[in-house]
Amino acid sequence: MAGIPLRKARTIIRKTLEAGHEMGLKPLSVIVLDEGGNVLAFEREDGSSPGRFQIAHGKAYGAVMMGVAGTAQLARAEAQPAFIAAVNAAFGGALVPVPGGILVRDGKGRVLGSVGVTGDTSDNDAAAGRAGIEAAGLVAEI
Amino acid sequence: MAGIPLRKARTIIRKTLEAGHEMGLKPLSVIVLDEGGNVLAFEREDGSSPGRFQIAHGKAYGAVMMGVAGTAQLARAEAQPAFIAAVNAAFGGALVPVPGGILVRDGKGRVLGSVGVTGDTSDNDAAAGRAGIEAAGLVAEI
Amino acid sequence: MAGIPLRKARTIIRKTLEAGHEMGLKPLSVIVLDEGGNVLAFEREDGSSPGRFQIAHGKAYGAVMMGVAGTAQLARAEAQPAFIAAVNAAFGGALVPVPGGILVRDGKGRVLGSVGVTGDTSDNDAAAGRAGIEAAGLVAEI
Amino acid sequence: MAGIPLRKARTIIRKTLEAGHEMGLKPLSVIVLDEGGNVLAFEREDGSSPGRFQIAHGKAYGAVMMGVAGTAQLARAEAQPAFIAAVNAAFGGALVPVPGGILVRDGKGRVLGSVGVTGDTSDNDAAAGRAGIEAAGLVAEI
Repeated sequence: MAGIPLRKARTIIRKTLEAGHEMGLKPLSVIVLDEGGNVLAFEREDGSSPGRFQIAHGKAYGAVMMGVAGTAQLARAEAQPAFIAAVNAAFGGALVPVPGGILVRDGKGRVLGSVGVTGDTSDNDAAAGRAGIEAAGLVAEI
Repeated sequence: MAGIPLRKARTIIRKTLEAGHEMGLKPLSVIVLDEGGNVLAFEREDGSSPGRFQIAHGKAYGAVMMGVAGTAQLARAEAQPAFIAAVNAAFGGALVPVPGGILVRDGKGRVLGSVGVTGDTSDNDAAAGRAGIEAAGLVAEI
Repeated sequence: MAGIPLRKARTIIRKTLEAGHEMGLKPLSVIVLDEGGNVLAFEREDGSSPGRFQIAHGKAYGAVMMGVAGTAQLARAEAQPAFIAAVNAAFGGALVPVPGGILVRDGKGRVLGSVGVTGDTSDNDAAAGRAGIEAAGLVAEI
Repeated sequence: MAGIPLRKARTIIRKTLEAGHEMGLKPLSVIVLDEGGNVLAFEREDGSSPGRFQIAHGKAYGAVMMGVAGTAQLARAEAQPAFIAAVNAAFGGALVPVPGGILVRDGKGRVLGSVGVTGDTSDNDAAAGRAGIEAAGLVAEI
């Protein structure tokens, strides 16, 4: 299998939203990108603010394009803010380097794509996304 | 009811994809935008080329932001190409003014959002999208 | 195998340049993109004008992102110039829809990426690129 | 001799990659720019994240366009972050001012172009790139 089939992308999104409900989170938005950073699927829950696509996209896009998940991006941004700002500009400002940008791997460790979750705190976003990815039988690096 | 709830957006996407299968079309990508032009939901079928999000978005975005469906946009572009080009530039180049950009209305004629479909011919894209919107109990202006 | 390994990308570039020499073409520039439209490898021959990267990239990027090779893009642009102009704007102006943008497929017809060739006439660019792709054991759709 | 001939650019890339293998680094991506900041050659090793072109480019582009190598750019960014941010904006956000952006000089000290390396730590990237440039008989300022 190359990449994430749409069937699995749907499972990731639904199970992430379900995890958010069980955790009592605010309405979430979830995006799934392929291994080249292109959009596969997205859903925004009712009650979300309208700009959630861009934030979910930025979290997921940075993760897959740099091969670095959101938690590690945030650590890098805190240690070397100028570096992350410059990398972001080199990608047209499209990156949102915080938790909730999650690498999706198969069982052999290969990156298949990424997931971006936004709506609650960054750490809660990441926990819900991890639950969704694992429910699809894949491996999450938050 | 204000806007398109996520539940209906999902129905639109699934029924558009089903219509594409029944019509024997190539793999489709379908986006649903809210009445403010912001992304609600998107899916790209397996086998699609990777840039389908941008095209689906451009079709739907032009429809809802101008309040003019794709078929009428194309007619306008053929009659007055400089006008449509200028409007497109004013929107940062985001519009794709062809059939497959569909206005979604409620039974009273109010615009609730728009749908963008891409993957086959523009006319087939529009026909599948209309089927999806009507299956959700809404009114399509292609 | 997913995508085009660097070893094959190098072969494509070298064999395209060799074909250009045998055909007596002007200096060529050749890019190889992966199936998500991201750059794998590029070379610009001595004597080329400095902006050849952008042209090679635009040819290859349009091919892979739309899943349509350069020759078919040009035909579409001649039949429906407003459509291709709008799609191009939706991709930030990055597309160059002419021959020399070549889809790379494996033996089963799956798109693995694309190649962009520039420097001589568009048709000669495409012929040289096809030779390079076939020398790497892959299938070219010009 | 004006600039870096393609033959030397290839040597720089191959020897940088070999140095990375000998040093046990992660997969690297290497770009060579001419003295005008335009792309001459690029390769991305298998296993790299897909966005490495933009980062390699940003490192090399800043070095040659400002005539300041990455290590000195980083020092300047730490001392005067607003200055480097403003310069970066003036170049459309294309600069990545960290080690791994390397000036390439001839024996007389003239700048012939630049090299950008990314994939491991910035300092390891720079060390590998220096090895590649010296293997091509040129002088590296990291």
